[in-house]
Amino acid sequence: METLFTTDKTRKLIPIIKAFIETNLYPLEKPETLNGNFSAIEPTLKKLREKVKEMDLWGLALPESLGGKGLTLCEFGQISEILASSPFGHFVFNSQAPDIGNTELLHKHANKELNKTYLDPLSKGEIRSCFSMTEPAYAGSNPTRMGTTAVKDGDDYVINGHKWFTSSADGAAFAIVMAVTNPDAAPHKRASQILVPLDTPGYEFVRNIPIMGHTGDSWASHAEVKYHNVRVPQSNLIGNEGEGFLLAQERLGPGRIHHCMRFIGIAERSFDLMCRYAVNREIKDGVTLADQQSIQNFIAESRVEIDACRLMVLSTATKIDKEGSKAARAEISGIKFFTANMMLRVIDRAIQTHGALGMTNDIILSYWYAHERASRIYDGADEVHKVSLAKQILKPYRNA
Amino acid sequence: METLFTTDKTRKLIPIIKAFIETNLYPLEKPETLNGNFSAIEPTLKKLREKVKEMDLWGLALPESLGGKGLTLCEFGQISEILASSPFGHFVFNSQAPDIGNTELLHKHANKELNKTYLDPLSKGEIRSCFSMTEPAYAGSNPTRMGTTAVKDGDDYVINGHKWFTSSADGAAFAIVMAVTNPDAAPHKRASQILVPLDTPGYEFVRNIPIMGHTGDSWASHAEVKYHNVRVPQSNLIGNEGEGFLLAQERLGPGRIHHCMRFIGIAERSFDLMCRYAVNREIKDGVTLADQQSIQNFIAESRVEIDACRLMVLSTATKIDKEGSKAARAEISGIKFFTANMMLRVIDRAIQTHGALGMTNDIILSYWYAHERASRIYDGADEVHKVSLAKQILKPYRNA
Amino acid sequence: METLFTTDKTRKLIPIIKAFIETNLYPLEKPETLNGNFSAIEPTLKKLREKVKEMDLWGLALPESLGGKGLTLCEFGQISEILASSPFGHFVFNSQAPDIGNTELLHKHANKELNKTYLDPLSKGEIRSCFSMTEPAYAGSNPTRMGTTAVKDGDDYVINGHKWFTSSADGAAFAIVMAVTNPDAAPHKRASQILVPLDTPGYEFVRNIPIMGHTGDSWASHAEVKYHNVRVPQSNLIGNEGEGFLLAQERLGPGRIHHCMRFIGIAERSFDLMCRYAVNREIKDGVTLADQQSIQNFIAESRVEIDACRLMVLSTATKIDKEGSKAARAEISGIKFFTANMMLRVIDRAIQTHGALGMTNDIILSYWYAHERASRIYDGADEVHKVSLAKQILKPYRNA
Amino acid sequence: METLFTTDKTRKLIPIIKAFIETNLYPLEKPETLNGNFSAIEPTLKKLREKVKEMDLWGLALPESLGGKGLTLCEFGQISEILASSPFGHFVFNSQAPDIGNTELLHKHANKELNKTYLDPLSKGEIRSCFSMTEPAYAGSNPTRMGTTAVKDGDDYVINGHKWFTSSADGAAFAIVMAVTNPDAAPHKRASQILVPLDTPGYEFVRNIPIMGHTGDSWASHAEVKYHNVRVPQSNLIGNEGEGFLLAQERLGPGRIHHCMRFIGIAERSFDLMCRYAVNREIKDGVTLADQQSIQNFIAESRVEIDACRLMVLSTATKIDKEGSKAARAEISGIKFFTANMMLRVIDRAIQTHGALGMTNDIILSYWYAHERASRIYDGADEVHKVSLAKQILKPYRNA
Repeated sequence: METLFTTDKTRKLIPIIKAFIETNLYPLEKPETLNGNFSAIEPTLKKLREKVKEMDLWGLALPESLGGKGLTLCEFGQISEILASSPFGHFVFNSQAPDIGNTELLHKHANKELNKTYLDPLSKGEIRSCFSMTEPAYAGSNPTRMGTTAVKDGDDYVINGHKWFTSSADGAAFAIVMAVTNPDAAPHKRASQILVPLDTPGYEFVRNIPIMGHTGDSWASHAEVKYHNVRVPQSNLIGNEGEGFLLAQERLGPGRIHHCMRFIGIAERSFDLMCRYAVNREIKDGVTLADQQSIQNFIAESRVEIDACRLMVLSTATKIDKEGSKAARAEISGIKFFTANMMLRVIDRAIQTHGALGMTNDIILSYWYAHERASRIYDGADEVHKVSLAKQILKPYRNA
Repeated sequence: METLFTTDKTRKLIPIIKAFIETNLYPLEKPETLNGNFSAIEPTLKKLREKVKEMDLWGLALPESLGGKGLTLCEFGQISEILASSPFGHFVFNSQAPDIGNTELLHKHANKELNKTYLDPLSKGEIRSCFSMTEPAYAGSNPTRMGTTAVKDGDDYVINGHKWFTSSADGAAFAIVMAVTNPDAAPHKRASQILVPLDTPGYEFVRNIPIMGHTGDSWASHAEVKYHNVRVPQSNLIGNEGEGFLLAQERLGPGRIHHCMRFIGIAERSFDLMCRYAVNREIKDGVTLADQQSIQNFIAESRVEIDACRLMVLSTATKIDKEGSKAARAEISGIKFFTANMMLRVIDRAIQTHGALGMTNDIILSYWYAHERASRIYDGADEVHKVSLAKQILKPYRNA
Repeated sequence: METLFTTDKTRKLIPIIKAFIETNLYPLEKPETLNGNFSAIEPTLKKLREKVKEMDLWGLALPESLGGKGLTLCEFGQISEILASSPFGHFVFNSQAPDIGNTELLHKHANKELNKTYLDPLSKGEIRSCFSMTEPAYAGSNPTRMGTTAVKDGDDYVINGHKWFTSSADGAAFAIVMAVTNPDAAPHKRASQILVPLDTPGYEFVRNIPIMGHTGDSWASHAEVKYHNVRVPQSNLIGNEGEGFLLAQERLGPGRIHHCMRFIGIAERSFDLMCRYAVNREIKDGVTLADQQSIQNFIAESRVEIDACRLMVLSTATKIDKEGSKAARAEISGIKFFTANMMLRVIDRAIQTHGALGMTNDIILSYWYAHERASRIYDGADEVHKVSLAKQILKPYRNA
Repeated sequence: METLFTTDKTRKLIPIIKAFIETNLYPLEKPETLNGNFSAIEPTLKKLREKVKEMDLWGLALPESLGGKGLTLCEFGQISEILASSPFGHFVFNSQAPDIGNTELLHKHANKELNKTYLDPLSKGEIRSCFSMTEPAYAGSNPTRMGTTAVKDGDDYVINGHKWFTSSADGAAFAIVMAVTNPDAAPHKRASQILVPLDTPGYEFVRNIPIMGHTGDSWASHAEVKYHNVRVPQSNLIGNEGEGFLLAQERLGPGRIHHCMRFIGIAERSFDLMCRYAVNREIKDGVTLADQQSIQNFIAESRVEIDACRLMVLSTATKIDKEGSKAARAEISGIKFFTANMMLRVIDRAIQTHGALGMTNDIILSYWYAHERASRIYDGADEVHKVSLAKQILKPYRNA
């Protein structure tokens, strides 16, 4: 379907990727896969990764210099929606968080040696990585409060701290750790990002945190970790000292587009499941759920809400492509809470339409219902984004 | 501000029109004007119409052959938003409903003589018109049920019926009347549209209906009328017999864009008033409403909701421009309820922010609160559009 | 219908009052009455007041010493719901705000002479009164900020200030004016309540404020007034100096019950109109709105929401009856926003069900839609009550 | 706290039970317990059951003849709320569904022999039971559509069918099976309830269905089962043939009160967790979440919504106690959807307040978020109850 955002590349790529996912990934949606350990399905997914490489579809989000296709953020966003229709889509195409963000970060801000040692195998999918920022002791709504420190000692940094929601740490080769290096600087200039190989002594993997009843493992996990006098060379610094938040902010622009398009992909698939079920579920002879106004209301409201979000996210992506993340800061705050809430409403309606079946893992909806609830929390809770957006809007009024 | 939909024409026209409205129309927003009779302000507005003509801004929605600027629907939509920031904007630019719709209808479907007698002075703003469809005895949700009949007698039609919400009939020169001419045809092919000069014997102007406490007059009114053996020549038929619904449907595509962009213009102005008031209203020393999270939430939510609606409506307009109304039928249903509800939420939040002042006619919000409630009813109630949209969505699923 | 709150008195009174209102007041609901000046209908209502006296139903909210029936707050609350089913109910039974509150205030806190001169004719319905607190220059969310002052001069107070929403000032005999008498005291102890006869020199009636397009007059109006060196004897003080907020607070407990039960009465009547219309409005042969799930959803949701509010308000009234207003402070905050929002939702659904008719003044719903929007603002905006309730809830947690 | 519904029995029992649960059950809320198999925690719970017996608190919902305390439904409802504050509360007090319903059913409608064999050990907690009604092939919204049949053969019934959501079948001693015995009767008179011991040949336990990622076992499970020519004596019939729906309906009145009070208990506990966390979670020095208006709004709204639901449910229970389930049919429909939606909103706000922690199983909220989503589906989906309630309300209007 042609839209305002269709380009030659999306026109060509989307149907191929869509077909690949429907054929290869939808059949993997079984209770044992969704509820089980990721490591059990990983061999299967790795074989599919090879297939993706053979089809020359690898690393869609990668910069051209790393073998990517040179897609704009808006183009990749449209593809990301398709990948998200399966919980395995991004992984199989090596476009999964947090590796996609770390790839971009290293590419732009790491020195040559780090790039050779870490970025190269990461972009090939040979290793995985994680991003270690959130701390249990400090509210995420104020990221400048942070307990983890990196103190210079000789040529090294010595890192101490306690983190959680270091997603995908289980099995990762390295972490990008956010730590306070300049405690006396202004709040936003205190922290730096430092690459820490996870076989470094002093790194403690505490546990994969059980989330909504599911502990998970490997890529599909959220770890609690500790850093006890973890020593890495100062050359492992990404960017400059004190730029931790600046780089995090820079990462967030494209990151939000990725997240939001993923939300839209999930919503769109849930919508499709809802419609399919509605026309097939008979409630009396010759009458299906699709004939019920309450269900029709679900469908009509979901349709416009999904479409509105997609337009919002892709027009924000276009703005980032043209003017950069900073110019689109307000839009980036807005789409996050707007799209996450939409996704959760659509999933909820799809479950309600499915009745008892919707609660089960015989269908994917319950998986998303549980796990995607986090979308209103991570990467800025709704309440934080609303305040942030309002302040940006009100600033010129205050100065008027 | 450049957007995805900006063109050379909108880039040039919008700032001029915006400035005109802010300078000339905002100052007219006084209690006596908003609550009083339109006829009292009409002389002032007529002078401004002359000014508009002098500035070569007349008839922005007119086809080029009638002196218009050849704007696409999407271009006019963007201008319509600006016009809607004042309740007098569309009138002063001769782009007001129902004349704008009647103009297009006559232009496309009326014979030469009708065009000469009626379309010509209408497009010049010398006369006004109305559209007479809704009937008190029949639910609007099913337009094929209609009591008004037009029976052939010699060369004439003889029309009998009872209509209401024949908006702007007070002072209009003619009505386009929807009447059943072919009672034995399929439901959607029973009615025709017939032009009836309002000085024809048998036409009874019953009253301007009091709406939300306001009776109004002239253009700003909603009449109840009766047709008692009203006789007009058969050459007053618009299009062909039995095409009444087809023509109404055709009218609705652009008509919805006009309505929805008007809703967006009202929402945007309400949003601006909310922000202005929030930064200025002190609640304790040095603390204003703008510092309150509840108000910040209003502002952030309103911002994304307005922007999402605008993208939806303008992308629908673009689709109509490219592929015609029929291809965009689902989108046209969707934007109507989505945008009307958004507007009412934004007005409501703006009133709540203004507190007691918001209830008064010292500010325009209460006027919109009362009068724009109709937006969820006319031109298809929310409930009707949702069912209609859902059915279109579900059709391919049923046939699968 | 027997409920948890039925008493012998309500069992006897309610059916009589209900029948009186349906017979005598419902027929007065005409566009010209609802949109017109209250003074035009006042003679009719005054005759009905005589009838009420003859039936020994006068002053249901009065204390027994003033000829009342000794109803508990919970009992009067139940009757207040019935009175509210007509916009004229409270007035005809002399239970209308603000007189009902002023009556109670004078009865408890004014000296004998004031009581003789003002309370006596007020309780007999011979004069009317008003309460002059809100000021345009200060946000109502923080009542301790106030510009009006009362300065002692000899035996008098000299009052200067600017008020608005001094409801029913038009035609009132006196106002209870809130003014700062002790500017150096703690914020909550600065103001006093002083009775000001409205024929006192220096009192300026600026205007009746147009609200939602309706200016109104007499009892049904909201005035802007000014006090220019208005001089009254110090014996006109109500209670003690500095007790202005204390008395206002005391007034609020019962006042909120009155308001909330009025909201419930309006919601219940709107609900009844919605159900009546739904079963009668045909949308195709033999199918009415009552057969549509969207309308059924409106009805089911409204039913439980109204019932829940009534239980909340009457159980709060019971608590006030037993333990006093102070003990029920949290509940009093809670019911205000909960009930006002419920009422507005029910009115909105009833209008939507009525379609175009719902917008007109041919039915009372549009009157309530416009005028009752204020319920979320006056007497504490939603946002203020939520913060206040939350703080009360959180206090013991903070201290834990 | 004294309420309108407090009695001598609740005044005495509630504090004891509350203390027992807080001391003995809250400490069991650990990730491994909540996510693990119920059978792992069962031995611990069984010891606590003995303690409950020793404290003479066993079988609070049992009729006196079975050793219960003769509590009214309203009294037990208030206790049920307390039990629900732990997911193990009802089980430890032997008041858990579906056994509580089966106990009442057998007590009222089974013959002596069945009572001796099954009711006696069931009321002592020696065996467990299940209720086998829902079928995957038929929509629950229309319970008269059912595929399971029980055909007479000699002195036996021979049962064939496929059921799911036969909750707690895993480890149960018997099921009450709903099966069509009279296929030619009116739809509501076709089915009967038959007791089937689960060691009967032909009974197939297919699986415990994975729900929201959790398969569970023992009491905490939802089974899919099949009946292949399962043969039981006709004396296993409960009540009379064709009374299946009548008995199910009778069961539903008290059953809904049980469910709804459970929802309220969960909401109240979630509310308490939200308040505790809000005052303790610092977002900057000296400022906690409790100081944020967005969180205060969550708290204020939750408070009134919980209280309103409790009043609704307990006043419905009182009506059932006084007038029977049939008289309260409308209320019973209303409270179900009203209370379930309230609970889910409160849980959701509590999670949002907890941020990332709320997603984890370190706190109980995520468990309820996932598992209690079913409350809007089982025992009548929201949409079904709304239609049912509306029809009851509209009936007298239609007949007017």
